[in-house]
Amino acid sequence: MREVADAVTLGEREADFSSVDKARVVEALSPLLPPGALLFDPEDLRPYECDGLAAYRQVPLIVALPTSEPEVVAVLTACHALGVPVVARGAGTGLSGGALPHAAGVVLSLARLNRIVSLDPRARTAVVQPGVRNLAISEAAAPHGLYYAPDPSSQIACTIGGNVAENSGGVHCLKYGLTIHNLLRVRGVTMAGEVVEFGSQAPDWPGYDLLALMTGSEGMLAVVTEVTVKLTPKPQLAQCVLAAFDDVIKAGDAVAAIIAAGIVPAGLEMMDQPATVAVEEFVHAGYPLDAKAILLCESDGTPEEVAEEIGRMREVLAAAGATELRVSRDEAERMRFWAGRKAAFPAAGRLSPDYYCMDGTIPRKRIGEMLEAIQEMESKYALRCINVFHAGDGNLHPLILFDANRPGELHRAEAFGADILELSVALGGTVTGEHGVGIEKINQMCSQFARPELAMFFRVKAAFDPVGLLNPGKAIPTLNRCAEYGRMRVRDGVLPHPELPRF
Amino acid sequence: MREVADAVTLGEREADFSSVDKARVVEALSPLLPPGALLFDPEDLRPYECDGLAAYRQVPLIVALPTSEPEVVAVLTACHALGVPVVARGAGTGLSGGALPHAAGVVLSLARLNRIVSLDPRARTAVVQPGVRNLAISEAAAPHGLYYAPDPSSQIACTIGGNVAENSGGVHCLKYGLTIHNLLRVRGVTMAGEVVEFGSQAPDWPGYDLLALMTGSEGMLAVVTEVTVKLTPKPQLAQCVLAAFDDVIKAGDAVAAIIAAGIVPAGLEMMDQPATVAVEEFVHAGYPLDAKAILLCESDGTPEEVAEEIGRMREVLAAAGATELRVSRDEAERMRFWAGRKAAFPAAGRLSPDYYCMDGTIPRKRIGEMLEAIQEMESKYALRCINVFHAGDGNLHPLILFDANRPGELHRAEAFGADILELSVALGGTVTGEHGVGIEKINQMCSQFARPELAMFFRVKAAFDPVGLLNPGKAIPTLNRCAEYGRMRVRDGVLPHPELPRF
Repeated sequence: MREVADAVTLGEREADFSSVDKARVVEALSPLLPPGALLFDPEDLRPYECDGLAAYRQVPLIVALPTSEPEVVAVLTACHALGVPVVARGAGTGLSGGALPHAAGVVLSLARLNRIVSLDPRARTAVVQPGVRNLAISEAAAPHGLYYAPDPSSQIACTIGGNVAENSGGVHCLKYGLTIHNLLRVRGVTMAGEVVEFGSQAPDWPGYDLLALMTGSEGMLAVVTEVTVKLTPKPQLAQCVLAAFDDVIKAGDAVAAIIAAGIVPAGLEMMDQPATVAVEEFVHAGYPLDAKAILLCESDGTPEEVAEEIGRMREVLAAAGATELRVSRDEAERMRFWAGRKAAFPAAGRLSPDYYCMDGTIPRKRIGEMLEAIQEMESKYALRCINVFHAGDGNLHPLILFDANRPGELHRAEAFGADILELSVALGGTVTGEHGVGIEKINQMCSQFARPELAMFFRVKAAFDPVGLLNPGKAIPTLNRCAEYGRMRVRDGVLPHPELPRF
Repeated sequence: MREVADAVTLGEREADFSSVDKARVVEALSPLLPPGALLFDPEDLRPYECDGLAAYRQVPLIVALPTSEPEVVAVLTACHALGVPVVARGAGTGLSGGALPHAAGVVLSLARLNRIVSLDPRARTAVVQPGVRNLAISEAAAPHGLYYAPDPSSQIACTIGGNVAENSGGVHCLKYGLTIHNLLRVRGVTMAGEVVEFGSQAPDWPGYDLLALMTGSEGMLAVVTEVTVKLTPKPQLAQCVLAAFDDVIKAGDAVAAIIAAGIVPAGLEMMDQPATVAVEEFVHAGYPLDAKAILLCESDGTPEEVAEEIGRMREVLAAAGATELRVSRDEAERMRFWAGRKAAFPAAGRLSPDYYCMDGTIPRKRIGEMLEAIQEMESKYALRCINVFHAGDGNLHPLILFDANRPGELHRAEAFGADILELSVALGGTVTGEHGVGIEKINQMCSQFARPELAMFFRVKAAFDPVGLLNPGKAIPTLNRCAEYGRMRVRDGVLPHPELPRF
């Protein structure tokens, strides 16, 4: 009989796993896995020391590579019995350190559970194992004119298990939804080795919505072993409007106007002038470089639908003060429009030795305000920031440019980033849009949530994992951590200054 | 320090509240509420004895009618301290007995929290108290060309708090989503009197998705005190295709074909011949009475979009074997098409002294199979069944006709209904589409879920309400109840025969 007191303890402070004995864990796990599926030599462990957030690194104790659900059950059951923390890992493309290993823990890689179990074109569903790559689902569905809609920019590499853990979005999620909107069923294993299944093949299901609870839970509740996804018919046509503005505020307001007009674009992205200038040198997208900001607004569907919708988009954008409107004339031009947007991150890397990508989300109608505030912060912190936004979702990716080798710049970049995130919360938004909290934004969760909500998160965590062995220290800050973060606020007498990643 | 052991106890068997002392509870609650807001005289309690599932009745101990969130907090805190169960109630229109009172408990009516707090046409959101009627939100939004999309058939009366509790749908939820897809934020109070808030004004939020968890939790986790909903622009035009079929299987398959063609109708409903004949006498909808089944397939949007989509719908329906296709020529004709569908339940009441409405959901592509099986069951049980389906969602409302005064008919109707629900689960569906589990379908949850999922539900319940005082005995069956239900399966050696409501 475990006590809910554990949930409180879980939520109080980070757990101590110093008593874990590596030899004992290796001995326990070895018989459970095929040869070569348990890594424990330091050189074998090195590739697992970080995910896409390379600023944080930690070599794990052991890496387990199961090839089936029963092996996942066996590994979790054994680790549970030994009190060993476990961090599940997909392709390791996450940007918030959700798959950062624990020094005393096992990394449970789902890479070898990579089979498409079945694909039903008539029901428009596919059953896949967690290690199947996002794009591989679309490739398998393509002969049927179908695809899997959520398209994170890492979709060539990232896996569906990780997508479920992070509730991944993508450029098209405004119209086609996040991962949760494209799932029917998830099967997983709890830390105690219990197989659970939530959702169904039908569009709705009774009982608490534990499918939604699992989705975006950053590997803290259960390890996903099978996913049933919805497939979407490929649109016959897609066209993109490129709209130029002589003022960033006008561009921000145009985004709100598009949505307010009842249009749901297939994609609605925004870049400011520093961003367009930076990418233009790099990919020659043909952007109007005199514009203070551009919007990319996409329509997809049948040719008739697209023609009608593009017409309405043009009207709204013109009324919102666009100085130039271009509609892609063919697929090549549409791809060129997007090439610039997709090159924004590498272009930032060319502009500056270091950059820091933020991921706040705000109500769409506050985009103009946020851009004005970022302009002021550029002066305040004497650093440049280039802005690329999933504008239709209100999801901001400001890229703060700095040089870690110049004294004070790193510190100013961190403070700049913290300012943006705190302002996101103040404007009614959140500290993360799609990259997750992981280890990166865990302190900002103290600003996002009050004590009752954090306590509730730990109680829900305890319902799945009472001992707190699954991905400890991620996503939900302990009350102790928040107290320290709070003390920092008082001590400095300024806006909170989180421990941001060191580059 | 409460123990998770409680969660197990919660899940083991129904709790015993026989020690609750009415006089003591009245004394504790009286000072917390304004005069007239606490009912405890038997005649005052009578109107609260049931919700829309009138087959189950129970007079509560006390009814509390708070007018503010602090009063909700006060009532819950007091009941928590006294160990008194609490059943939250909206308008009492629910069809599964979710608001059925507890004999030893307080009904917490949210009817007086009925204020639209704010409405922001630019952000397309409204902040409302739980007792605001569903339709009242749309009425308030109408001057801005907006409405609140989910439209349960009780929308004139039902309230948004109840909609959140049941995750209500409606005729248009295929295109516009269930309640969960039209929410941004929910504020509520736990049984211990703690105010919690989940979601944000932004489209996504970090942390576990407790907003989704709360939605559809049938009043078991927390009492909703404020909801932020999304508003949707009113479409410029809506048109409806009426398609007739000479075979119910062909009609079922046509539904799957529409969806497989990538069309998302604003509504996609199906009625079989007994249903059309029954309603025609009643409302003169002009349905083709020689057709074995009809579909109503609606398109909405701009005139161009509607014209294009109606064209595609006609093509698919013709290819699927429709013998007749009519497109509504004006709003009056469209309303006439729908009038028949909306009169199906009262028409069933005219056809037969009693009817029993089922609410299973199945994958769309199995509709044909289900209809064939229901035809066979009509012979097997020697009872008629008329079928009206939210076909696009795979949500079935078979209406089993019987006469409770004729010996054996009630029993056969119950067995017929149980057969349909068990087959829904076997076909990959669920025992309830949109009416909730409540008390009505609690036994079928034993078929729907395995022991680990049921145990998980109780552990999640315990995270919010460790003592199990909020709406006890609803939605999630205890292991004891399932064991009894399971024993019945063994004993009878036939398909499980749940305790269905007595009419």
